[in-house]
Amino acid sequence: MQKQNLTMLTDFYEFTMANGYFEQGFIDKIAYYDMFFRRVPDGGGFAIMVGVEQLISYLKNLKFEQQDIEYLREKGMFSEAFLTYLANFKFECDVWAIPEGMPIFPGEPIVTVRGPVIQAQFLETMILLTINHQSLIATKANRIVRAAEGRAVMEFGTRRAQGYNGAMAGARAAYVAGCVGTSCTIADRNYGVPALGTMAHSWVQLFDNEYDAFCAYAKTYPDSCTLLVDTYNTLKSGIPNAIKVFDDVLAPMGHRPSAIRIDSGDLTYLSKKARKMLDEAGYTDCKIIVSNSLDEHIIRETLLQGAKIDSFGVGERLITATSEPVFGGVYKLVAVEGGDGIKPKIKLSENVAKITTPCFKQVYRLFSNETGQAIADVITLHDEVIDASEPYMIFDPEYIWKRKIIENFTAVPLLKQIFEGGECVYDSPNIDKIKQFCTQQVDALWDEVKRFENPHKYYVDLSQKLWDVKDSMLKQYAL
Amino acid sequence: MQKQNLTMLTDFYEFTMANGYFEQGFIDKIAYYDMFFRRVPDGGGFAIMVGVEQLISYLKNLKFEQQDIEYLREKGMFSEAFLTYLANFKFECDVWAIPEGMPIFPGEPIVTVRGPVIQAQFLETMILLTINHQSLIATKANRIVRAAEGRAVMEFGTRRAQGYNGAMAGARAAYVAGCVGTSCTIADRNYGVPALGTMAHSWVQLFDNEYDAFCAYAKTYPDSCTLLVDTYNTLKSGIPNAIKVFDDVLAPMGHRPSAIRIDSGDLTYLSKKARKMLDEAGYTDCKIIVSNSLDEHIIRETLLQGAKIDSFGVGERLITATSEPVFGGVYKLVAVEGGDGIKPKIKLSENVAKITTPCFKQVYRLFSNETGQAIADVITLHDEVIDASEPYMIFDPEYIWKRKIIENFTAVPLLKQIFEGGECVYDSPNIDKIKQFCTQQVDALWDEVKRFENPHKYYVDLSQKLWDVKDSMLKQYAL
Repeated sequence: MQKQNLTMLTDFYEFTMANGYFEQGFIDKIAYYDMFFRRVPDGGGFAIMVGVEQLISYLKNLKFEQQDIEYLREKGMFSEAFLTYLANFKFECDVWAIPEGMPIFPGEPIVTVRGPVIQAQFLETMILLTINHQSLIATKANRIVRAAEGRAVMEFGTRRAQGYNGAMAGARAAYVAGCVGTSCTIADRNYGVPALGTMAHSWVQLFDNEYDAFCAYAKTYPDSCTLLVDTYNTLKSGIPNAIKVFDDVLAPMGHRPSAIRIDSGDLTYLSKKARKMLDEAGYTDCKIIVSNSLDEHIIRETLLQGAKIDSFGVGERLITATSEPVFGGVYKLVAVEGGDGIKPKIKLSENVAKITTPCFKQVYRLFSNETGQAIADVITLHDEVIDASEPYMIFDPEYIWKRKIIENFTAVPLLKQIFEGGECVYDSPNIDKIKQFCTQQVDALWDEVKRFENPHKYYVDLSQKLWDVKDSMLKQYAL
Repeated sequence: MQKQNLTMLTDFYEFTMANGYFEQGFIDKIAYYDMFFRRVPDGGGFAIMVGVEQLISYLKNLKFEQQDIEYLREKGMFSEAFLTYLANFKFECDVWAIPEGMPIFPGEPIVTVRGPVIQAQFLETMILLTINHQSLIATKANRIVRAAEGRAVMEFGTRRAQGYNGAMAGARAAYVAGCVGTSCTIADRNYGVPALGTMAHSWVQLFDNEYDAFCAYAKTYPDSCTLLVDTYNTLKSGIPNAIKVFDDVLAPMGHRPSAIRIDSGDLTYLSKKARKMLDEAGYTDCKIIVSNSLDEHIIRETLLQGAKIDSFGVGERLITATSEPVFGGVYKLVAVEGGDGIKPKIKLSENVAKITTPCFKQVYRLFSNETGQAIADVITLHDEVIDASEPYMIFDPEYIWKRKIIENFTAVPLLKQIFEGGECVYDSPNIDKIKQFCTQQVDALWDEVKRFENPHKYYVDLSQKLWDVKDSMLKQYAL
């Protein structure tokens, strides 16, 4: 597939502001922006960072084509000097991001940008669009995968995704978060997400009868034969015909069946009946795949009721994160450079949750050396170092009398630099590495944080230094 | 932007089935498929068809590149003969679709495909993905636009969309359905959806104070000056500073302000106060724009409480159709050609709503010649003609004793041919024509169908001939 130039995929106000900054002579003014989010979708205890690779691809290809300049000129609101600046645009920002696959928490910077204000502001829309979307789907997919308790979950939602990229990048995010594959072929070819799929009901309908349809499929794919058994009647027709074809076609060829798939009806009841019928026919190794409007709650319910399911195909409720289809990441100014160093900026609000944390920052995750578990995240000034050789006191930034001393820990900085002076300085790991990293890092969270309902609130604290800056700014504005 | 080749954006099972049909010698078998949907999102009375232009673009560009063939070969499950067929692929299908902007109802075919089964089946994923997405967003946007009762609604959701295409095609669908514009610049350049936008809170933060920030903006854009007034305190700081800048900067330049925008707080209360303050300062022509997690219900509530709002910016809840983010269109086999003509196909289900309507079909909308209102849709055999010079009896396909005679009407066939033998035979109207058509056609629906809660169920009936075929097939399978 050819590269799309996505430079113009941005909110129009990024242009009106950029032109305004240009006209104000702010061309060399250096600003710092953070992306962060305020709550985890579905009331979960954590989200998962995904989308950095696509963000890098966007940043590497930032370039205004002649037709973009023409389009902007026709708007009649931008100065020629500004249009010339865009035509000669050279990306110069420094960018930091939390690596893909990492659990992330509300309030902490997950992307930080430093650069000329015109450029750093301009990135807002695409940083948010890219990271919001993939992190949304990854966070949802991880819930579904955890509900399946080790059984395979396949992402089958392409036809119900919100647009082409929703399907492709969504399949990628779902795989990183633990799905074993996707129905989306192009996600396999472009991103290396294994694509899977066998037959639709229309395959069965096209033949004179179900038995003939199954025979034809078994002959074509004897070593990967999965049959869809619910076109007419799962128990009376589908499974008996499947077994007959396993006997009549596969056995003489020396092949074992792969699976049957049930796509409608009471999946728990049917799977139990199916398991019994397959076992009695000697096909104890034939797996049972189910699909049809599944999500983490339905999967959990089927397993609680003893369903005999080996694998789940999950469609629309994963690929659109139906239960909460928005990841509300925001991008806020946190500092500017002046003659006298870095000046922190804060956005106030009567809604306390909407007050931003100023300054150029770093996030540390403190892991217990005993258990390997993540204990807390601490947001610090960017150049602050946490000395893990000494006990470290963390405190709740809101209820500051809630304090805890951490000992015997390792402090891992989470924000990695991905661009320096406009040049990419980061190699994205391959997708299977990212997937593996995600599993490890989710495993490092306490079970209490991973609960679906009322999870424990993971500590995300501010260092004393950062807290002092924020507190003094709040006091100053409160006057 | 360069064209993407989306041929590989398809469910993998379309390939396993295609290869299977090929191996079964079905290369010349002609099949008919319908896309239809089963329920309107949000419990609404109708949906809006959008996405045909993108579907046409996809079909025109169907082509397997050498790298696609290589990718498939590496899977080790497809025959070389089949891969050669793909490499030489020539699209040959006939395709019909309901034009963009038209209200559509559950159960009626909105896209019909006739062609070699390998090809017609293969189109499933992209037809569904394209039409499901844009129709979802258009249907939601139209609800929001109707709630605003003539006030302008702008689509502002790019940063929260589900992926890049979700933002772009979503902006297009929202515009067709009645929004006045979008924040998404590329949707303007590519599709002609007017892009709009002024400033973020970070513009205000970047200056030493709000007054300076407003001055700078007003000087840069004196003839389109819209100021965001809620960065610090809307009533105590934002609006007074805006008025001061209108006085100090715009008035001496001979300009009137465009608007203020309020993005947080109690929008109803603040808009009333703002209106009063602006009016008292002599700016009765300054419009008030509001944004912040709006949808049709919140908009209706603000207006019921007398909010003084001229224009709504609607973000995430429109661009993701948050309240119900899935449009459940399906694609089903409805007929095959054999030696003896067209043979209808039906998909049975214990769930009556999931039984399909067989046959190659047409949909007629019957409009009253007196009022111009849409009375009912009638699904017929494809070559059936409704004679509008005679009274026409319609009947409920489920409760067949419910009958109604229609007189003095015009019957408009809705499915238009867009491809014939693989060639495009349809010119998409330009987007403003589509938008206008949408408005007219929604106006032609009864108010009872347009109700948000418990709308009247619009009649979608079967012709006697089609009902007879379906009934006889159901009886046959019931034996």
